[in-house]
Formats: sequence, C-alpha cells, structure tokens
Amino acid sequence: MANHDALPLVVLTEQFAKLPGIGMKSAARLAYHVMSMDDEEVEEFAQALLNAKKTVHYCKCCENLTDQELCPICDDPTRDTSVICVVENPKDITAFERTGEYKGLYHVLHGLISPLRGVMPDDLRIRSLLARVQAGGVEEVIMATNPTVEGDATAAYVAQLISPLGVKVTRLAFGLPVGGMLEYADEVTLYKALENRNEM
Amino acid sequence: MANHDALPLVVLTEQFAKLPGIGMKSAARLAYHVMSMDDEEVEEFAQALLNAKKTVHYCKCCENLTDQELCPICDDPTRDTSVICVVENPKDITAFERTGEYKGLYHVLHGLISPLRGVMPDDLRIRSLLARVQAGGVEEVIMATNPTVEGDATAAYVAQLISPLGVKVTRLAFGLPVGGMLEYADEVTLYKALENRNEM
Repeated sequence: MANHDALPLVVLTEQFAKLPGIGMKSAARLAYHVMSMDDEEVEEFAQALLNAKKTVHYCKCCENLTDQELCPICDDPTRDTSVICVVENPKDITAFERTGEYKGLYHVLHGLISPLRGVMPDDLRIRSLLARVQAGGVEEVIMATNPTVEGDATAAYVAQLISPLGVKVTRLAFGLPVGGMLEYADEVTLYKALENRNEM
Repeated sequence: MANHDALPLVVLTEQFAKLPGIGMKSAARLAYHVMSMDDEEVEEFAQALLNAKKTVHYCKCCENLTDQELCPICDDPTRDTSVICVVENPKDITAFERTGEYKGLYHVLHGLISPLRGVMPDDLRIRSLLARVQAGGVEEVIMATNPTVEGDATAAYVAQLISPLGVKVTRLAFGLPVGGMLEYADEVTLYKALENRNEM
C-alpha cells in the first residue's frame, strides 16, 4: 500500500496479508472492509481471535484441538475405542467426520516427517500415540496421512513402531475417486487402482 | 463446521466467514492457521484490528480515511487545490495515486446513489463536497465514479449541483483500455471509444 494510506490501515493490511492465501490486494480490501464494520463487530472479531488462541489447546488423549480437557470425540462414550485413525491435521478429522461412517477415535500428528523442512519424528505427536497403543485396548491403527512422499514415509515410520506392539496397522485405500473419469486419472492413481483391484 | 470442533474455533471461523470473499472452507483454514501462530502474533493481529477501527476516521476535508485530522493528501502543500477528483471509495484514491500523474485533491462520496439499495444522495458525502466548492478556489471537479448505471447517475446528480456554482465539471474518459484488443471489447466500451474519438 502506498504511503498516503492511514498508518493503522497499513498495519492491519499487513496483518491480513500474513494469513495463508491472502495477498496484498485482498488484504487491503479486507482492511477497508473492517473500516465499514460496526465497532462492536470489530470488537467481537478481535475477541474471537484472542479467545480461540487462549482457550483452544490439544486434547490430552488424541492431540486434536479442543477447549476442554478431552475433545468431543474422545469424550464420546459411543465411539469405538479399539480403532485409532492417525491423521496429519485436525482439519482431516473434519473430513472423516463428514462421511459419518467412521466411529473410532483419532490421533493427530500435527505434521509429517520431512527432513528437507527440518521436521523430524520428535517434532510430531508420535510418542503420545505409542503411549495410547501401549495402554492397551487398541486393535487397529489406520494410517490416514495423505498419499504423498512425506505422508507415505510418515505412515511407514509410525507403522514400524506400532507393529511390534501386536496391533494391526492399516493404510487408507488409494484408487480412482468415486465419480472420477478413467481418462483424467493420473498414472500413479490408476496404477494404485489396478494394484488394489477387488473381486466382483 | 461440524460440532466436533472446539467452540472458540467455530466462533472464529464464523468471524472470518463474515469477511467479503471468504467462504466457510477458507474461514476454517484461516482459523486453524491462527492456532498455529504465536501468542504475540495473534495479539498483534487483534490489536491491529481494534487500533485501525479506533483511530481511523474520515478526513475533515476530503472524507478519505486517515488517522490524522487531515489526510496526507489534503495536508500536502504541493498538491493543486484547484482540482477535486470525486471518487466512490478510498480504494479508488489508491488507484489514482498509483498513476503518479494526478496532483490535485480528492473527495470520497463513500458510495453511489442507488434507490434500489436504499442509498439516497443524503447518505453520501455530497454536502461536504459542495461546501468545499462554495468555499472558493476550485476550478474543476472531475467526476471519477465507475462507468456503471449507478456511477453515471451519481456523477450526473453531483454535476447538476456543482455546475450552477460556476465551476467546470468533467467526467473521466471511457474507451478501449490500453493494451486491450478490439475484438474482446464489449459493445458499450467500443461505442464509447468511437464516440470519444480524437483527431490524430
């Protein structure tokens, strides 16, 4: 923004521009929009920011984000405690919950092993996962990280730690997306779909 | 967002989703991002919001946004005070300033006349514009609202109020955008370009 803008507006624009996926133009538009909001609305927005950051922390069982001691899923007595689905981010839990089909628990790693980006196994929430498995009652751990190099490597690493504990470790199936078209599928997806074919 | 998300996160997501151009999915992504920010970063963001809203108001001369009594443009003694460029939004000033060519002053209407949306002339900053013209020293008022039905109507309305004061009122030229291609220009733009043709 040029220097003829009021300084507090420039500061606010820069704050918006720090958010992922928001460039300087969008940030300026958002800052101008804030100017047109009521005082109370801006107060509410600022409070929501501070409040979320202050009260939300990791669930002491599954490392999902929660403002309670246990997240609503770990705290739900109807969930199947014998299955743990291991995901990269809390966002992934939202995706699984939308299917409405999965009734087990989750464990959030908060990242993937990536030596290039300096993320080592100790930076992830792997220890708490092992502790949960070692505490007993778990029959299956589903590795649900993304089908990327880092996702596969992290899944393999975690599986290798859990298998000796006598618990079944599985990986999500990869293949053609439902409703997808063969001709648009990339080679790797098509290869996976062929490799994992099922009898009809 | 489903109800397995922590409530403060849902509240924050809804706040982000109120901003223009941000849907529920982007809002959730931004809320999760805030969780990964440092405490101080979130404090700074919240402060920037409150501070901008609290300290930024309208320039008492041109109605642009400023945190001083006069905006930097009205306060600049090198600007040509005999020309006033009338725009819809403070954002439009940024666009003109980027050209680096305009040395006059501005006046921000903060909207356009739109009976359909219930915006009447009295809702705009027209009175303060007339007061500036009546105070004397102004030789030309450039109507720089957008070439839309509402922009044209507002320009015509304001021009009709200013003309009797003996001040020249002009309108931005409309025609082919520089670098644009004839075959892609819409009919109205092409008609304007033809109508406003200049001798070579």
